[in-house]
Amino acid sequence: MDRATLRSLAAKLFADVAACSRDGEGITRESYGPTESSALALLEGFAQREGLRTGRDAAQNLVVSLPAEASDAAIYVGSHLDSVPQGGNFDGLAGVVAGVLCLVDFRRKRAQPPRPIKVLGLRGEESAWFGKAYLGSSALLGTLTGDDLELRHRSDPFTLADALARTGVDVARVRRGERLFDVAGAAAYLELHIEQGPVLESLGLPLGVVLGTFGVERHQVTFRGQAAHAGSTPMDKRRDALAGAAKLELEIREIASRVGEGAVCTMGGVITRPGIVTSVVETAECLLDQRHLDAAKLAEMLSNAEAASRRFAQEEDVDVEWERIWNIEPILFDEELISLADEAIREVAGESHRLPSGPLHDAAEVARAGVPTVMLFVQSLRGLSHTKLEDTKEEHLELSVQALDRLADKTIARVAPG
Amino acid sequence: MDRATLRSLAAKLFADVAACSRDGEGITRESYGPTESSALALLEGFAQREGLRTGRDAAQNLVVSLPAEASDAAIYVGSHLDSVPQGGNFDGLAGVVAGVLCLVDFRRKRAQPPRPIKVLGLRGEESAWFGKAYLGSSALLGTLTGDDLELRHRSDPFTLADALARTGVDVARVRRGERLFDVAGAAAYLELHIEQGPVLESLGLPLGVVLGTFGVERHQVTFRGQAAHAGSTPMDKRRDALAGAAKLELEIREIASRVGEGAVCTMGGVITRPGIVTSVVETAECLLDQRHLDAAKLAEMLSNAEAASRRFAQEEDVDVEWERIWNIEPILFDEELISLADEAIREVAGESHRLPSGPLHDAAEVARAGVPTVMLFVQSLRGLSHTKLEDTKEEHLELSVQALDRLADKTIARVAPG
Repeated sequence: MDRATLRSLAAKLFADVAACSRDGEGITRESYGPTESSALALLEGFAQREGLRTGRDAAQNLVVSLPAEASDAAIYVGSHLDSVPQGGNFDGLAGVVAGVLCLVDFRRKRAQPPRPIKVLGLRGEESAWFGKAYLGSSALLGTLTGDDLELRHRSDPFTLADALARTGVDVARVRRGERLFDVAGAAAYLELHIEQGPVLESLGLPLGVVLGTFGVERHQVTFRGQAAHAGSTPMDKRRDALAGAAKLELEIREIASRVGEGAVCTMGGVITRPGIVTSVVETAECLLDQRHLDAAKLAEMLSNAEAASRRFAQEEDVDVEWERIWNIEPILFDEELISLADEAIREVAGESHRLPSGPLHDAAEVARAGVPTVMLFVQSLRGLSHTKLEDTKEEHLELSVQALDRLADKTIARVAPG
Repeated sequence: MDRATLRSLAAKLFADVAACSRDGEGITRESYGPTESSALALLEGFAQREGLRTGRDAAQNLVVSLPAEASDAAIYVGSHLDSVPQGGNFDGLAGVVAGVLCLVDFRRKRAQPPRPIKVLGLRGEESAWFGKAYLGSSALLGTLTGDDLELRHRSDPFTLADALARTGVDVARVRRGERLFDVAGAAAYLELHIEQGPVLESLGLPLGVVLGTFGVERHQVTFRGQAAHAGSTPMDKRRDALAGAAKLELEIREIASRVGEGAVCTMGGVITRPGIVTSVVETAECLLDQRHLDAAKLAEMLSNAEAASRRFAQEEDVDVEWERIWNIEPILFDEELISLADEAIREVAGESHRLPSGPLHDAAEVARAGVPTVMLFVQSLRGLSHTKLEDTKEEHLELSVQALDRLADKTIARVAPG
């Protein structure tokens, strides 16, 4: 497929899906909701008109493939079709469109790859809707729990189970934790996604290879001092919870810098009580997020932050308490696929760059299940995502389709014959 | 009056007023509201039974005096009778009860001081009810504005003007800014109040002399950076508003310590936006309160904090903006009265201590109008006030009546004859 055709097909698909999910100035495609279903239907119709085979898996994700494929273990290419409320058009959709266009390329050339290629348009990746991410891949892999199924929609009076059932999922099988995806039948999983960060743009590169997804340690750290009158309490008689929080905010940056290798630490918010101008702060609840690609380094960061917080609490004569909100282990992608992805990117864009993924992705869920996996990142303008300001240049989207195409070829060549 | 009589009268008055304003475990006496009026009525009845003269001034504050006084300039003794919602019993009431008991002492001894002594039971000192403090003294001194009169009650559908009118105040005169108090007729104003801070307790002293009320500079300081994904934004690519706020919180303590002489600086709250664990903080709105007894030192503190905030903003590549919420000049009390108060305290309690007042008081309003003024503080247990946990020891209340009595005597001796 020549570049002009590729560019025009991609532009049309992005515009059509955007049109069915436009929400003010942003894009809204609800997880397991009507606008997400419209996106699936629109891509399915396009694929069918191109002579591709389409269907739904047991979690009602879209599956597109070439007709008349062998039954060998397949190369899966996927990403997600939902968005956050009032988000951007390319977060998720870029990877599905790229996968479908790779199949269109094969189909128009009447080429039959030696391995089946299956493109997944996954549902429900964004946690914005039900408070949990990777619903479509988790439902498929049997990792949704009964509690997960009872999660309530962010604004409407129904649960995740209701939403799954409404799209045609057999919820009883999901509830039993059945694995509804044939892991042995998956030779590899490839996912293209927008970076959602500023690294590639700052390097002037369109594409990068993802080494894996960060492990995350998320805690609420609460400093507890004593409320006291701002006018009548001398400085040396205060037990100021905010001072503990301030020291920790500054220290986590030192911790990240000492540990290095891409370490990130964020205090995303502080809630102060009583929080009035006439009182010393009694409690400061800090939201802390620490991430690293190496589990041992992440544990070291956490333990350093805990130790520092206790030191600060002692200095300020306040108490400190840690409560884990959530954590997840790092997922490292397949080394051989990482090398192939590097090659593919260099061939289409001249230079590649390896980077970790800060956000989690469906790819991490699939890799965790044992499927050799890699991701490509395409540059996000200004590093923005989850906002209507998210954007990616058309020429970068085009290069990303070419790189994904090459990567699929190389992956097939490496794993074939079945 | 012997100590046993004094103690029993004080205990009865405190218990009776508490009984008419009990609110759960706390005390509620609404500014210019029914429970405050009950407290006035209760003290008035007691004073009348003791043969004292009672009346109301133009702002419907209670005025108690000895019968058959001369028309010379009077020594005023006053404090307030309202409380914050669910507050303590002694904040304000202690000073009025002490003043009334001084008059009872004169009356029972059939002594006639060479100057009139007038005890004021002021209304509406607490800003909790209408958002503005010192209503009773301000109404009297002609410093309430038309805007103040339209302030709405914190929970009920009426204004300050409505509340004043309901107690019998001629609101038109207040609105015109008439001075309804004869400043020339006031030779001195003496106020006893609970400390509302921890200084006297930490020194093991029952009583202290107040040098004046702090000047206050109150600002909202807003740091503005860039929201960014906590996972995908490397540490060196962040514009973290919270880092600016954290540095400022730690720096204001250094500023207070450098300026010294009782300087206090407080960051009473921080509001972080978006304030979620997955994002670098875009804006941090800090509530800043700085106080000093010396106007030049206060200006120096403010200018140092502003300069520091701009340095931190530059270091963190964020913006900073200062918005004044409120400010007030320091009020210094009368030097001669301060010396007399020191003497009075030493005579009844052995040792005195001079300290500034963090909270503002009616005394500051009266001093601003040109009346020679001083305050006594009586120890607050654990420095607490504006909570049901506020408390002051019975023996300290007793000493405070004795000290106030002596101070009134000394003041009369100094200013007499008229």
